[in-house]
Amino acid sequence: MYSFLNDYSEGAHPQILEALNQTNLIQTVGYGKDEYCHLAQKVIKERIHNEQADVHFLVGGTQTNMLMISYALKHYQAVIACDEGHIQVHETGAVEGAGHKILTRPHVHGKVTCQMIEDICQQHTDEHMVQPRMVYISQTTELGTYYTRDELKALYEVTRKYDLYLFLDGARLGSALVLPDAPTLEEIAQYVDAFYIGGTKMGALFGEALVIIHDDLKPQFRYHMKNKGAMLAKGRLLGIQFYELFKDHLYEDIGLHENRMADMIRQALIKKGIPLYEPSATNQIFVDLPQNALEAIEKEFMVTHMGAIPGGERVRIVTSWATSQEAVLSFVSLIENL
Amino acid sequence: MYSFLNDYSEGAHPQILEALNQTNLIQTVGYGKDEYCHLAQKVIKERIHNEQADVHFLVGGTQTNMLMISYALKHYQAVIACDEGHIQVHETGAVEGAGHKILTRPHVHGKVTCQMIEDICQQHTDEHMVQPRMVYISQTTELGTYYTRDELKALYEVTRKYDLYLFLDGARLGSALVLPDAPTLEEIAQYVDAFYIGGTKMGALFGEALVIIHDDLKPQFRYHMKNKGAMLAKGRLLGIQFYELFKDHLYEDIGLHENRMADMIRQALIKKGIPLYEPSATNQIFVDLPQNALEAIEKEFMVTHMGAIPGGERVRIVTSWATSQEAVLSFVSLIENL
Amino acid sequence: MYSFLNDYSEGAHPQILEALNQTNLIQTVGYGKDEYCHLAQKVIKERIHNEQADVHFLVGGTQTNMLMISYALKHYQAVIACDEGHIQVHETGAVEGAGHKILTRPHVHGKVTCQMIEDICQQHTDEHMVQPRMVYISQTTELGTYYTRDELKALYEVTRKYDLYLFLDGARLGSALVLPDAPTLEEIAQYVDAFYIGGTKMGALFGEALVIIHDDLKPQFRYHMKNKGAMLAKGRLLGIQFYELFKDHLYEDIGLHENRMADMIRQALIKKGIPLYEPSATNQIFVDLPQNALEAIEKEFMVTHMGAIPGGERVRIVTSWATSQEAVLSFVSLIENL
Amino acid sequence: MYSFLNDYSEGAHPQILEALNQTNLIQTVGYGKDEYCHLAQKVIKERIHNEQADVHFLVGGTQTNMLMISYALKHYQAVIACDEGHIQVHETGAVEGAGHKILTRPHVHGKVTCQMIEDICQQHTDEHMVQPRMVYISQTTELGTYYTRDELKALYEVTRKYDLYLFLDGARLGSALVLPDAPTLEEIAQYVDAFYIGGTKMGALFGEALVIIHDDLKPQFRYHMKNKGAMLAKGRLLGIQFYELFKDHLYEDIGLHENRMADMIRQALIKKGIPLYEPSATNQIFVDLPQNALEAIEKEFMVTHMGAIPGGERVRIVTSWATSQEAVLSFVSLIENL
Repeated sequence: MYSFLNDYSEGAHPQILEALNQTNLIQTVGYGKDEYCHLAQKVIKERIHNEQADVHFLVGGTQTNMLMISYALKHYQAVIACDEGHIQVHETGAVEGAGHKILTRPHVHGKVTCQMIEDICQQHTDEHMVQPRMVYISQTTELGTYYTRDELKALYEVTRKYDLYLFLDGARLGSALVLPDAPTLEEIAQYVDAFYIGGTKMGALFGEALVIIHDDLKPQFRYHMKNKGAMLAKGRLLGIQFYELFKDHLYEDIGLHENRMADMIRQALIKKGIPLYEPSATNQIFVDLPQNALEAIEKEFMVTHMGAIPGGERVRIVTSWATSQEAVLSFVSLIENL
Repeated sequence: MYSFLNDYSEGAHPQILEALNQTNLIQTVGYGKDEYCHLAQKVIKERIHNEQADVHFLVGGTQTNMLMISYALKHYQAVIACDEGHIQVHETGAVEGAGHKILTRPHVHGKVTCQMIEDICQQHTDEHMVQPRMVYISQTTELGTYYTRDELKALYEVTRKYDLYLFLDGARLGSALVLPDAPTLEEIAQYVDAFYIGGTKMGALFGEALVIIHDDLKPQFRYHMKNKGAMLAKGRLLGIQFYELFKDHLYEDIGLHENRMADMIRQALIKKGIPLYEPSATNQIFVDLPQNALEAIEKEFMVTHMGAIPGGERVRIVTSWATSQEAVLSFVSLIENL
Repeated sequence: MYSFLNDYSEGAHPQILEALNQTNLIQTVGYGKDEYCHLAQKVIKERIHNEQADVHFLVGGTQTNMLMISYALKHYQAVIACDEGHIQVHETGAVEGAGHKILTRPHVHGKVTCQMIEDICQQHTDEHMVQPRMVYISQTTELGTYYTRDELKALYEVTRKYDLYLFLDGARLGSALVLPDAPTLEEIAQYVDAFYIGGTKMGALFGEALVIIHDDLKPQFRYHMKNKGAMLAKGRLLGIQFYELFKDHLYEDIGLHENRMADMIRQALIKKGIPLYEPSATNQIFVDLPQNALEAIEKEFMVTHMGAIPGGERVRIVTSWATSQEAVLSFVSLIENL
Repeated sequence: MYSFLNDYSEGAHPQILEALNQTNLIQTVGYGKDEYCHLAQKVIKERIHNEQADVHFLVGGTQTNMLMISYALKHYQAVIACDEGHIQVHETGAVEGAGHKILTRPHVHGKVTCQMIEDICQQHTDEHMVQPRMVYISQTTELGTYYTRDELKALYEVTRKYDLYLFLDGARLGSALVLPDAPTLEEIAQYVDAFYIGGTKMGALFGEALVIIHDDLKPQFRYHMKNKGAMLAKGRLLGIQFYELFKDHLYEDIGLHENRMADMIRQALIKKGIPLYEPSATNQIFVDLPQNALEAIEKEFMVTHMGAIPGGERVRIVTSWATSQEAVLSFVSLIENL
């Protein structure tokens, strides 16, 4: 059985693993103050053309979201997200567990819109209600869609109007970075106050690089990390991995590969007349499968069930850095022969 | 200007104030271990026919909700409410500030329904999502409606099915207690795991009596109160007030008075053909006022604006223990002459 | 049995109770935005000659300490106190419950010293340790001693050196304010960043007036109060009481009375050769009583046991606004006749 | 410069790294539900002869301590530790950040004693004080000492007397496991309620295995992990590493190696007449170095400064799985030739 369940089914991209092997016996200081972390911070800051940014390496996505949001907000302040936002649905209440409310509105193609932000801000003007103070978005979204550079810029502007921080969760950022109308890394850094570059779902063993742009979000962030149990002793492991990902565009190469694999699957489904649920261009495909198609697929492939639909099931298919063209061709052939 | 803004515009019911005056110089021990608190606990437990219940006296409603919910839940557990629930909208994120998510669905006449609970529980079965563990309702609701005894019993049963605590916020409980198809105090105590009897909005200077029925919610609750800064030094003040409210049915008398005052206003509005927004039988009236009616009223009375409607404004009118029949007759006369 | 157990055994000073009676039926807005709160804020700001200060009225001392400390600190920051500090010993972990460590050193006559602060700050310079950010002191202390104006000024200076906020808990402030070498209210406001004026132990039914001097501690504090369940619906009750306490020096009169009552007891004990444990000039007396003296006293008076000593018991005797000269004379006579 | 700064200066033990390489392309499910985690859980449960234990894999020590303590305690409850405990000094307030007070007493050779626990419990019997509910110890301690099996058993018994959980932090457990009078893994599992087996400081890239013995500490712990951002997506990485450490006693082999390296250094120091600060038998050496010795050492080796002493400096020297005999011999020779 070949798994299309997610993009963290395997270990690390071979180039990353090789770097971990090569550096294994070198002695460094701990907690992210080593030369590999410095190198990785340097290449990321060069890529965004912002020497003043702070870059911190963390282990996982929920941890990173919770840390950034809880640093930015007081307990009487809230973060705005859409109802399908990862922090709202799939983090077991981590943001609320840290003491902060999430204000939501129904998503539009998986995304937060300027209108939602306007509405929420206009309705929360009273000291008996939480005060909106941050907007959380993810690139790509939970439905595989993405924000264009114009959409991001518009969100940035509305957050300026209401004195909100804009925070972008980039767990799957690589898949969007390589799309022509999506914002580049440098553009993202211009239009958000903080964002993270996902490693776990982009070929690293683990790790996320949190990039903080807004000066108010920077002071003593490392204390905050330690206080929440999020400072890795062998911090070098994160530096080594992110240096590999960014020293020569491995990150974008992985994004291109996974999108290309996903496109082959998408084309086969469309050609067969099977409707995509939320048409996407990234490495996540949401599709409404008739029961017979589902059964045929699940003889050879694992896919994620999202819920029953009339006559079948909505499923998610995910490609990754490790997805083999062989597996994809085999899947495509199966679809063609349904 | 006469205020119909809320039910906490004045001090205390004269009988309560008199009791505070009479006992002022008597020495007692502190922190709610005095004889007045014991007397008040005794009369409340007699009224619900449950000697095993624990009764704690707290100062305010948000405090009481936050204390009970944070005691009952782990941080990975959530409380279910409707989207208009007081804890969801009007407590400045107190529940989330204490570390707990609120799961909501759109209200039905201001109320939580069994179907909402079923839906939420069936969608939250995965360790990446919060675990529903409590249902929060209020009697009366934020829209002035109330749960009938059958509705409460049905909610109780669905909470048993999903292993949820049922918690009732009775900030305005007196207004419902005197309605024939609403549950009595004894019935409430049978069909919830914890509830509070509001004092602040029912004629006390301040204070809420939290009644804990479920044994798992009882141990060391006083430590929890102290830890959250919610244990009043001169706890006697709460005991004295609740003893007055419950030793001779003053609580119900106040409920009857405020409903009677509200009924007179409701009749006048209906007779005049002005539509009630959410028809109610309690001390809160929500009504869609044409602009001219609003303007005429606001020359003499203060009412709460709830939001613009075509051609006017939705407003809330609230009666209380202190609402004078004179003021109500004057208001009624104004409506008749519109 | 007459109680010298504490200074919150009775209700309110008659003048305060009278004001509550007089204003009972006047309608006001809620949540501390009424005219009585404004009046009380005005007289307090006049007394400290600081129009820029913010004054908030809260219900109790633990609540006030927890609110101010949790507003001022991030979770990786700590508050410095002595090992006998109220927040360290007698608040059931409220400060830690809100997420903040207390760093302590052994007290010197119940007080924090400059040397303690220096030591702690010099030992906490590493991101694996909490960062000291505030100093907590109380006037008077848990042992009935007090900070002189010179001591307070010295603490202020050391807190400037290490970028620490200085916060003064004035639960029993009135007893110190009337001593000649203790800082006046105006001086306190010059040498701290925030302090509270105790009402509960100084003749109010309940209530503490938090005075915030440092601009960084002011923004949106009312949201923080509401989020922690600490905003009283009938906020007027606090305004009315503090206006009475400060419009004509009732606060200082109460301090003088309780100190005078305590002095009479102190003189009798000293004359009898019974050693005071921590000599004080305020309304708390700590004394090491021989067993026979304890037994004789406890036939007529209640005192607080602090722990066994060889041949007897250390006890605390507290006077208050309500302590009658008659009771004190009777106690003195008992001591003389031991 | 060769580093004796700590036991996490290098990557992973070669056998562990090899296992990560070998399994890299195998697809597994995420979040610790894969077959490698199951294997690792199985071998650990066999080693402690307790099939009912729960084993969870976490990323770091501070995270593990904070998770276990915050799961076990309510906010009004406290954990007992000694003043040198890792949670008290070196975790940037993580335990308090999660809402819990640490009650401390001065250490005895780096350890908690039964007497400390008795004292603390007898002094905390009042609802105005936190309630002791857990004891935290570490094996080995912050001073390189360790609890014998008799000492552990005695602590276990006193915790039973006062209804306290006993929790053992085993960040450096391997160094103690191989000492004859220290408790074995099986004995530890008999005499504590929860403990963790350190990986980060024992040859893993990262990771700690939390073993929960007491049934009350088990339910829904994985929800708690996720809520705190502590559930690793590629959980397999932890399973693979702990399986290598425990399938064939690699863990104990590493402990033996690091102790043997430390012994050689200790012997050289003692022979030279340089006093060990806290004599130990484990991989941490604390020694009071004269200034000339320190200077000579620091031309070739890095050691941790613990604080000035008359005429020199107290330093810590740490050996690890990666410490080479060559480096140790060179260090020994340097000491002999001082």
